[in-house]
Amino acid sequence: MKFSYQQLFTFAEQVFLSIGCPPDDATLATETLLSADLRGVDSHGVARLSGYVRLWEAGRINTTPRVGVTYETPSTAVVDGDGGLGLVVGPKAMRVAMHKAEQVGTGWVSVKNSNHFGIAGYHAMLALAQDMIGVAMTNASPLVAPTYSLERLLGTNPIAVAVPAGEQPDFVLDMATTTAANGKLEIAQRKNLPIPEGWAQDAEGRPSTDANAVKNGGALQPLGGATGSHKGYGLGAVVDIFSAVLSGANYGPWVPPFVAFLQPSANPVGQGLGHFFGAMRVDAFRPADEFKSHMDNWIKTFREAKAVEGQRVLIPGDPEREMAAHRLLDGLPLLDAVVKDLETVGAKFGVQL
Amino acid sequence: MKFSYQQLFTFAEQVFLSIGCPPDDATLATETLLSADLRGVDSHGVARLSGYVRLWEAGRINTTPRVGVTYETPSTAVVDGDGGLGLVVGPKAMRVAMHKAEQVGTGWVSVKNSNHFGIAGYHAMLALAQDMIGVAMTNASPLVAPTYSLERLLGTNPIAVAVPAGEQPDFVLDMATTTAANGKLEIAQRKNLPIPEGWAQDAEGRPSTDANAVKNGGALQPLGGATGSHKGYGLGAVVDIFSAVLSGANYGPWVPPFVAFLQPSANPVGQGLGHFFGAMRVDAFRPADEFKSHMDNWIKTFREAKAVEGQRVLIPGDPEREMAAHRLLDGLPLLDAVVKDLETVGAKFGVQL
Repeated sequence: MKFSYQQLFTFAEQVFLSIGCPPDDATLATETLLSADLRGVDSHGVARLSGYVRLWEAGRINTTPRVGVTYETPSTAVVDGDGGLGLVVGPKAMRVAMHKAEQVGTGWVSVKNSNHFGIAGYHAMLALAQDMIGVAMTNASPLVAPTYSLERLLGTNPIAVAVPAGEQPDFVLDMATTTAANGKLEIAQRKNLPIPEGWAQDAEGRPSTDANAVKNGGALQPLGGATGSHKGYGLGAVVDIFSAVLSGANYGPWVPPFVAFLQPSANPVGQGLGHFFGAMRVDAFRPADEFKSHMDNWIKTFREAKAVEGQRVLIPGDPEREMAAHRLLDGLPLLDAVVKDLETVGAKFGVQL
Repeated sequence: MKFSYQQLFTFAEQVFLSIGCPPDDATLATETLLSADLRGVDSHGVARLSGYVRLWEAGRINTTPRVGVTYETPSTAVVDGDGGLGLVVGPKAMRVAMHKAEQVGTGWVSVKNSNHFGIAGYHAMLALAQDMIGVAMTNASPLVAPTYSLERLLGTNPIAVAVPAGEQPDFVLDMATTTAANGKLEIAQRKNLPIPEGWAQDAEGRPSTDANAVKNGGALQPLGGATGSHKGYGLGAVVDIFSAVLSGANYGPWVPPFVAFLQPSANPVGQGLGHFFGAMRVDAFRPADEFKSHMDNWIKTFREAKAVEGQRVLIPGDPEREMAAHRLLDGLPLLDAVVKDLETVGAKFGVQL
């Protein structure tokens, strides 16, 4: 089933209002959430709305947070999300980073006491309109085993980097530090298909092609596969440290789970989950038009490279941008199960999909 | 054959003096170069000394560079390496980043007009002594094909991140954004062994297990293997952009080759190759002792995780640190071919190994 962006926007906004978000926050949360659906990252979009509501019902999300800076220098800050929706805390913290970049060239903000913030790319892209490079990271529920570990100690810990171009569309990298997101395993489960090697390990730490491996006590594997997973592990670790050890959020196995049916640790090492944001003015390095014209050349060179038969070389962000353009016109497809789930949530608050 | 650190240090320092480096630069270049041998990254250490000398003979390295800041804001700078050895330009630029971090919390420096800088980890680790997180990246000769590309457009573009701990040894990630470094292919070539899938592709862009694939017109593959190489490509791209599009160095296919027998592009898009350095004071986010005690807890938790039979969970930097401790006492092993090569270089300048 397909829905227009406007229709889903109105619905999600009403739900956020119903759980107590002030109007501006409800609008901001909706925009952040739906950026995932627009860009084709269906696992992180409106399909998660009921998850946020359940966390709120469990008293684990504060819908009227006082988001504020608790520690700072001219180019850095720690932001306390006050238990708010990451969908709201994220953009506010990113604005702090951008404001610092205006003042001293770059701004770097580590966030504690937050919740899941949707897709990392959305936050990084906020910097583009001001000719800044945007960086966004977050830690997440532990589902990933470091190389050789039997224990799940990291989340899929994504990294996003958005770089402004001139005439070319902007460069937007947004990637989990695992080979595959958990959502891809869920799709294989539904279709009863095996998964490629390098995605997951079983409970004994052996590489597995069973789509149920993580469910049955296994773990997602870091990016890099059989001979390189220590690199994905290292990147996921950096995301965890920047997001939580710098800010005072929970890290590693202490990161609170997104699903309401799993309890957060009784002995947390910090507050909520953590994010990390960065903004760098390109004209803090060279005149912006000079930078953007070279960025155009970079993008053109890569996009026009000779490619394998039947393929083309993509620039990070190309597929998501094309998807967003298409879905804005054509509507956003939702699985029946998601539609049903949204109708149930809507019914709770008297909101019609 | 094994050599003491002191013996190799004296030899390399004499060679750098012989090609015209001022004494302080010769010492610095030697320390940077040998940090690779100490840490077990033999491909980037003294084995490359003759390569640097050949570049100097070809007039492509300036041994008396005036390294200086050409553009800056309170938290950023562009450093012009004036065609100097990256082994010297790198640490000097990293010091600029650290000085800015002292002033405003963080410092970020993009470098143009430089050459190969040895291992990225060395530069990042300079920040540790001042309780700063260090970041180092560099672009490199194009050997890597982006996902679906038949053309080599990126180098192995490494990323290093060093994070200070308290009682635990520091966290030091230093990784190429490819699955395997070119040096690993060379080892397989010498031993006449196949390489694992995911390391390289042949001239038609097909995954290859032939150790000669890159030599014969193929390319190294980005980190991530069959189902994730777009992520390694994206990371390598970010390194290229931060190192060269920000600074005004050459990027992508224009990065000058390290080997003297290949000519740099006749139509460069910038000056020399590029690096990117960052320094963040941990006490720009929270008190340093608080940060370091949580970092200790992070490291301990990961190191003590239940592991696959016969293995242990490593912290990034563990193997290299253990190797360095061992080699300082036990000596640095060099292949016969490398010893011969060094003797030839030494003979040129009347320097005995």
